[in-house]
Amino acid sequence: MTLFTEEHPGVETHVPPETAGFTLNHSMLRVKDPRRSLAFYSRVFGMRVLRKLDFEEMQFTLYFLARLEEEDEVPEQTCDRTIWTFNQRGLLELTHNWGTEDQADFAYHDGNSEPQGFGHICFSVPDLGSAVQWLDENGVEFVKRPEQGKMKNVAFVKDPDGYWIEILEPALMGNVGA
Amino acid sequence: MTLFTEEHPGVETHVPPETAGFTLNHSMLRVKDPRRSLAFYSRVFGMRVLRKLDFEEMQFTLYFLARLEEEDEVPEQTCDRTIWTFNQRGLLELTHNWGTEDQADFAYHDGNSEPQGFGHICFSVPDLGSAVQWLDENGVEFVKRPEQGKMKNVAFVKDPDGYWIEILEPALMGNVGA
Repeated sequence: MTLFTEEHPGVETHVPPETAGFTLNHSMLRVKDPRRSLAFYSRVFGMRVLRKLDFEEMQFTLYFLARLEEEDEVPEQTCDRTIWTFNQRGLLELTHNWGTEDQADFAYHDGNSEPQGFGHICFSVPDLGSAVQWLDENGVEFVKRPEQGKMKNVAFVKDPDGYWIEILEPALMGNVGA
Repeated sequence: MTLFTEEHPGVETHVPPETAGFTLNHSMLRVKDPRRSLAFYSRVFGMRVLRKLDFEEMQFTLYFLARLEEEDEVPEQTCDRTIWTFNQRGLLELTHNWGTEDQADFAYHDGNSEPQGFGHICFSVPDLGSAVQWLDENGVEFVKRPEQGKMKNVAFVKDPDGYWIEILEPALMGNVGA
């Protein structure tokens, strides 16, 4: 592991051995209608559903989504695939509380209007222009296009529940920030 | 890539080629006091700050945190490191709007009380019992211990802003859900 030497307020100077193997597995967002959300994330962002977990007693279903890479060997057998899923890093978990999709006036809160908290998820893409074209072809709603606002080269779009998704191209970001 | 054959409502049966290289880079949470949050995530979860990006005009700072692995070769030079950061998957971005740490009555919304939306982030750990002991040693507040509630073998704790963090051990999760 390459060590870099910047220091930041409050940060431990070493990684505690008690945290060995800790993996940031997923972020969870509640969604109103899984059919819409799964269609969106599978088509527009090319994600796959690794596991769907139903909880009859508590009346909800969890969907664990990933961008798979060529080298990923996903187990076919469901028990093994569940364990594999929880060993990954950087997944998206979508929670569906049964019945919300049939409530006309039901909506989740995106965290960017008051009260604020959660902000967004972000996909990096190999080519920002091509990605914007793809998002437009799919009718995705933009919060901000790359050429708008103070943060150039960064776009924000909305998912079906209104959660913000940042879109950026790493090669264009080298000099961002002070 | 192993293909598995479950189908889910609304899901595309293939990954669109236009999405090649799309990477779920990060999830962003706003934090009141970066010193507290960085101390927490660096010590309790062993995360490192890959990049700190200051935006003077807009009066905010972004911190990009990762659990680094042995094989990660993080560039020392900041421009290269920024680009490397945005090419990773599964980072945690913390946003600090300057001055919130000095406002006694200021707090962000965790998404789990009304209005609901965002739910939590999750760390998987090699050994749940050892992780719980480590969290207790560090005075971390539990929402739910593994033996409480209907979801056994899963814990939830709070970060300094009250955001929920799920803790689970993959090997114990093979038979969860229907």
